[in-house]
Amino acid sequence: MRRGQDAGDERVSREVNATDVAKLAGVSQSAVSRAFTPGASVAAATRKRILKAARTLGYRPNLIARSLITRKSRVIGVAVGYLENQFNPQALQALSRELQALGYQVLLFTPDQDGTVDLGIEKVLQFQVDGLVLCSTTMSSSLARECDNSGIPVVMFNRATNDSSVSSVTGDNVNGARAIAEFLAASGHRRFCFMAGLEHTSTSREREHGFTSWLAQNGYGEPLRIVGNYEFEAARDAVRLMCKQGPIPDALFCANDHMALAALEVCRSEFGLRIPDDISIVGFDDAGPARWPSFSLTSYSQPIEIMTSETTRLLMDLIQRGTSSPRQVIVKGDLIVRNSARRPEVGVERVETQYVWRPAVVRPAG
Amino acid sequence: MRRGQDAGDERVSREVNATDVAKLAGVSQSAVSRAFTPGASVAAATRKRILKAARTLGYRPNLIARSLITRKSRVIGVAVGYLENQFNPQALQALSRELQALGYQVLLFTPDQDGTVDLGIEKVLQFQVDGLVLCSTTMSSSLARECDNSGIPVVMFNRATNDSSVSSVTGDNVNGARAIAEFLAASGHRRFCFMAGLEHTSTSREREHGFTSWLAQNGYGEPLRIVGNYEFEAARDAVRLMCKQGPIPDALFCANDHMALAALEVCRSEFGLRIPDDISIVGFDDAGPARWPSFSLTSYSQPIEIMTSETTRLLMDLIQRGTSSPRQVIVKGDLIVRNSARRPEVGVERVETQYVWRPAVVRPAG
Repeated sequence: MRRGQDAGDERVSREVNATDVAKLAGVSQSAVSRAFTPGASVAAATRKRILKAARTLGYRPNLIARSLITRKSRVIGVAVGYLENQFNPQALQALSRELQALGYQVLLFTPDQDGTVDLGIEKVLQFQVDGLVLCSTTMSSSLARECDNSGIPVVMFNRATNDSSVSSVTGDNVNGARAIAEFLAASGHRRFCFMAGLEHTSTSREREHGFTSWLAQNGYGEPLRIVGNYEFEAARDAVRLMCKQGPIPDALFCANDHMALAALEVCRSEFGLRIPDDISIVGFDDAGPARWPSFSLTSYSQPIEIMTSETTRLLMDLIQRGTSSPRQVIVKGDLIVRNSARRPEVGVERVETQYVWRPAVVRPAG
Repeated sequence: MRRGQDAGDERVSREVNATDVAKLAGVSQSAVSRAFTPGASVAAATRKRILKAARTLGYRPNLIARSLITRKSRVIGVAVGYLENQFNPQALQALSRELQALGYQVLLFTPDQDGTVDLGIEKVLQFQVDGLVLCSTTMSSSLARECDNSGIPVVMFNRATNDSSVSSVTGDNVNGARAIAEFLAASGHRRFCFMAGLEHTSTSREREHGFTSWLAQNGYGEPLRIVGNYEFEAARDAVRLMCKQGPIPDALFCANDHMALAALEVCRSEFGLRIPDDISIVGFDDAGPARWPSFSLTSYSQPIEIMTSETTRLLMDLIQRGTSSPRQVIVKGDLIVRNSARRPEVGVERVETQYVWRPAVVRPAG
């Protein structure tokens, strides 16, 4: 179809086509096509010969034209909330590595100046992504429906929808937060505080539910509640206000590590509080600087690499099989015990190089 | 050309074409095309009507087919070294925001399992990027030449080539490192150490040159030299070895903040050194946790947002004008003075909320 156009103008190197390359390399046109298809089978020596011929002629393999036929762009759209929180770039990097190994590239969607990710169905369709991963960001139900209508697979990472209408991979938010409540109660804390993240996110809601439900079921009453919106600055402000107003709680569970680090910095440097003697601080993620000695944060882990490989697996299933019913994958973690919270006398075990919370009696999630 | 194919099969919603949408919306086909072109002009009401019709019919606007005509994919390939160092995700986010505002999306290339970014000309051509940004990563001279031959604009960010053959935007590596040497000498340090990053990178080489050349020109002799490869773990190992072997230097300049934080953690938590009484530590970047009270790192700044907007500007110039001679942009920073290094008695000035090194006599770069 394009051959006629190309043949007429040999001055422009971009207009060289696969037939020219095949002729020069002495191979079939389909071999040329395979040589430029990620993942396609072609002998190394043949591929080398083809690439040499392509370079000699200045050939641009037309992925775009090919995708008109295969309807596969080998591009996965990934929307990611905010990259200040170290969990997110680490997840993005792991996800990109997984997808690249399968011959896909990530098309990135990040927040605009106003902090929101502008990702409507028009953009999804314009860039012809083969699938979409929403990483630490939410999705309107209308976009989910439109993607579904257009046959574009979507997997949410570290978020889920209320109605389980979209496939998702998350950490064990409810049970992780329950374990944190149990751990803090076992180590003698009585004045609890929960720092919420963004109010509309499943992660913040589920972690709050796990924490408060365990406390209620075990007779501890409702914890104090402050809001950090998953932002470093907002978390600092919330802790400042909490410390100024008093009385200061003896245990603070922050809905992610990013906010817990902010809380720790403010308590220590601005209010001279000793961690964990004056206040215990616990996070959720176990990622990035949380592990550094200066913080030594006790935190419930979200195993990034397992979560990204589950995400890739769900996505590839959806791409290869077409539509299917959405699935929710929950990846279990561990409460990693470090020095930012007082420890109970029993229940902390050494597992390889770390300490984890392993109470003898495990109460089921309610 | 594709209309004939589409008309034959109306069961598959993806085969609906722009003519069908134009008919239903009561507009011209070119209006439909404009409605789906990022940045193209179309009245809001018209656009809304077109999008409604497109949704009703399940129309997928064919960016791909359009890009065959316009030869513009509105996609910029961005290769980024490693996202553990907070400078890089912050740069990526800023760059993505800039490009999105201009109607472009970032196609991400990250390191594979072996730590290298697999980015050959085949991939660049396959995904038909309109341009390429290499962010904190290097580029083979052959890839640079092939991109040039194929008319694909390239801008390097936070890296440069030896021969200035590729456009680049960098911080002020040489003068920044000279300022650090002068600052440390002025505050009475005499046993200097430089921690190199990746040996083949322009950033590490230029910062080392600036540091050692100032020291040599001012009679201080050659500093001790250790290598951290820009990695947290490698930097920790290098500092451990340095501390064990002794004598411990009194001033350590690390080629970026990521390594400086690792050094600070090891000195403080493993060797009980007081910062800055026993050892002064200075970094380069002024990004991320370096600013937190627990580290309070003295560091030469690389202004991320200025650097990304310069990168975008260079790239857009190249895309719009086609090939032109490469340009090197150097963005000046400041030596931000915090508490990780002893301060000279004079030369530190308060500028807004920060302290910066502003010696009375500025020596020119050599």
